[in-house]
Amino acid sequence: MNPSHIVRRKREGEELSATDIRAFLQGYVSGAVEEYQMSAFLMAVFFRGLSAAELAAMVDVMIASGLVADLSAVPGVKVDKHSTGGVGDKVSIVLAPLVASLGVPVPMMSGRGLGHTGGTVDKLESIPGFRTNLSLSEYSAQMAELGCALIAQTEEIVPLDRRLYALRDVTATVESIPLIASSIMSKKIAEGIDALVLDVKLGSGAFMPEPERAAELARTMIGIGAASGKRVVALLTAMDRPLGHAVGNALEIEECVLLLRGEGPADVREVTLALAAEMLVLGGAADDSAAASTLAAAALDDGRALNMMRAIIEAQGGNAMVLDDPAILPQAEARRVLDARRSGTVTRMDVRAIGEAGVDLGAGRRTMDAAVDAAVGFHITVKPGDRIEKGQPIATVHARDGISAEAAGLRVLDAIIIGDGPADPLPLIVQRIDEAALTA
Amino acid sequence: MNPSHIVRRKREGEELSATDIRAFLQGYVSGAVEEYQMSAFLMAVFFRGLSAAELAAMVDVMIASGLVADLSAVPGVKVDKHSTGGVGDKVSIVLAPLVASLGVPVPMMSGRGLGHTGGTVDKLESIPGFRTNLSLSEYSAQMAELGCALIAQTEEIVPLDRRLYALRDVTATVESIPLIASSIMSKKIAEGIDALVLDVKLGSGAFMPEPERAAELARTMIGIGAASGKRVVALLTAMDRPLGHAVGNALEIEECVLLLRGEGPADVREVTLALAAEMLVLGGAADDSAAASTLAAAALDDGRALNMMRAIIEAQGGNAMVLDDPAILPQAEARRVLDARRSGTVTRMDVRAIGEAGVDLGAGRRTMDAAVDAAVGFHITVKPGDRIEKGQPIATVHARDGISAEAAGLRVLDAIIIGDGPADPLPLIVQRIDEAALTA
Repeated sequence: MNPSHIVRRKREGEELSATDIRAFLQGYVSGAVEEYQMSAFLMAVFFRGLSAAELAAMVDVMIASGLVADLSAVPGVKVDKHSTGGVGDKVSIVLAPLVASLGVPVPMMSGRGLGHTGGTVDKLESIPGFRTNLSLSEYSAQMAELGCALIAQTEEIVPLDRRLYALRDVTATVESIPLIASSIMSKKIAEGIDALVLDVKLGSGAFMPEPERAAELARTMIGIGAASGKRVVALLTAMDRPLGHAVGNALEIEECVLLLRGEGPADVREVTLALAAEMLVLGGAADDSAAASTLAAAALDDGRALNMMRAIIEAQGGNAMVLDDPAILPQAEARRVLDARRSGTVTRMDVRAIGEAGVDLGAGRRTMDAAVDAAVGFHITVKPGDRIEKGQPIATVHARDGISAEAAGLRVLDAIIIGDGPADPLPLIVQRIDEAALTA
Repeated sequence: MNPSHIVRRKREGEELSATDIRAFLQGYVSGAVEEYQMSAFLMAVFFRGLSAAELAAMVDVMIASGLVADLSAVPGVKVDKHSTGGVGDKVSIVLAPLVASLGVPVPMMSGRGLGHTGGTVDKLESIPGFRTNLSLSEYSAQMAELGCALIAQTEEIVPLDRRLYALRDVTATVESIPLIASSIMSKKIAEGIDALVLDVKLGSGAFMPEPERAAELARTMIGIGAASGKRVVALLTAMDRPLGHAVGNALEIEECVLLLRGEGPADVREVTLALAAEMLVLGGAADDSAAASTLAAAALDDGRALNMMRAIIEAQGGNAMVLDDPAILPQAEARRVLDARRSGTVTRMDVRAIGEAGVDLGAGRRTMDAAVDAAVGFHITVKPGDRIEKGQPIATVHARDGISAEAAGLRVLDAIIIGDGPADPLPLIVQRIDEAALTA
């Protein structure tokens, strides 16, 4: 294997054999392929893409670079959900106990927030005592006992992905659909899934705002799943608004408690139920999406999902009292209510700007090793299309102090565009894509 | 300056500012830009190209990475020639003394052979005692005294090019027109030229066989020259045959001696005169190409060029007796005459295969630090279009021993395709390109 010959062939748009892909990636693991050769390869992939067969070979090597969870002691079809990330996207924290409460095991490893979007692990860690850093064996044991675990990606899973991501981050090769897809799918397969539901976000707060590219990402991940015998279904959903009202770690946990009690904002409940329905069908707990959705709504409304969450929090060392009294969550010192500057209609929301304002408050991080402030964030009660009167309270800032609350408040008001024209919000569920798209 | 942002913008096809290009390349020199970031940048350049302004900034930084020859003591317009490389291309060794003998200074730094093509420095070093490794000050002094020097690129000139080339070589980013053009032009400008004639080879023995890409390379180099106030003219010439009869270092010097005496094969004399005419016009020694060509032919025929070569060899420590008795050059032990396998017409020559056979004989090298055997090579007397009788001698192999002569002979015979159909050889001079092409 001559590394530069492999790079050249990819550069020329040739499809590499599985043997070539394996040799190149294994060479990178062993040190025979240098960082500068890998970065040239990644840039060539950015321009030339990877075929389904190339991706399958790449994902195999990535998975084999670390440990794979053994969930053979967990009966049933294990189904996880992955979101491409958004602002106020706390769905996982409601969805996982909800689906598990209906008998479908949910092995959920999540990431931390980076950039303008939040991360499930950061949110969970605002629950006092909650441990997200279970070892792979603790995780497998909890899956066998409860049918659900909510943990951070362990170092043992796909170490090659961490190395590749670090290189992509400094060589402008992050935004490549096959590289994104292989990164996500290798970790999901290694965590022990049988099936996966993807929540691909669209709109101003999404990493990939254009629908065509979002759909291509979904198809690419469905294809990788198919090559490994894992069923994957994708929903393209709206991120032209924050999901729900709460943005910020403890504030979002508080909203999750409402949702688990059958309350909470309608949009996040609707998206959660749509994703739950897909997971329940994949997991064999319902025959069709309508029946599954009814089942899931009932489990939110009658406390089964809440009880499962209580068991999960207790199993992972957290204070489950949070489900009864969210006031035990970290609270911000300064609060500032934001009033609408004018009357009109919310025509548009710059969701990325809201996310960035949250990062600057301390709710998120710009570099992987930064700490977050669990207490800070926003509560934004308006949505695109809402009719607003001047002076009406539309949001609250939760901050460490008055100065940062003031600065963040101005940015949130700027990001909620009130005008006279009509709004054109996305439907909450824009599109559904499944394996049929591979042969279409 | 954030290196990955610069890579990203190039990846997206943006034109970078001169400030960005300078910061990125200077960062690479200083260590602030990593090898893996540069290789990703180079791959992005492969796909996106570089504008004239980007190239001008890049060439500036490359030149500034080392010393620049001070030829201010040399009167006149200093004109060099650069060839993209071919098989049997010994033109420089005749052209430089020829043009210098007519009063136009020729500051010539050349490379060693790599891959299937030979290198002027390797050929010169087959002359006993000839030193090609003059220091920059020795070179400047000889230029002032003789108006000509034939040396190897010194380490002092454009060290950044050597580092970039080494990286490109292992990351499949060699074959990029802007990168090739900036590499050549930075070295030529640093060696002290005022003007340059390019000999861009076309056909089966050329690095870039397609006429469109060869013309693009010529235009790119003319553009870099224009940005630095250096006039550049390009001739696209035939490399669908070896140039002349001799292929191999000492054999080519022997052929150069014939040419300097007004003898030698017609094709290499014709290409030499065409390039000389361009250099003489650029250097102000003739008003037009026809007058310049007549001047040059006379200087070959009446011994002026030969006398200049004698002075150069003596100045550089070589044994100038070689001009009187080429038999003092290294001689190969084994010779094998090759007879045509059939009657017919030479329809085509696989010049790259002939070059590769020469490398395997020992006349060239595959890696930069390999040694060459000065004595070995070929003498091939037929050209595309020639009518051949079966059994007619068409070439001689000069080798270390009978076994390697036998193997090389078979490859040379395979590479001279004799058929019944008509031949369609390139004209020796295919096209002329000058600054007018930049505004066309």
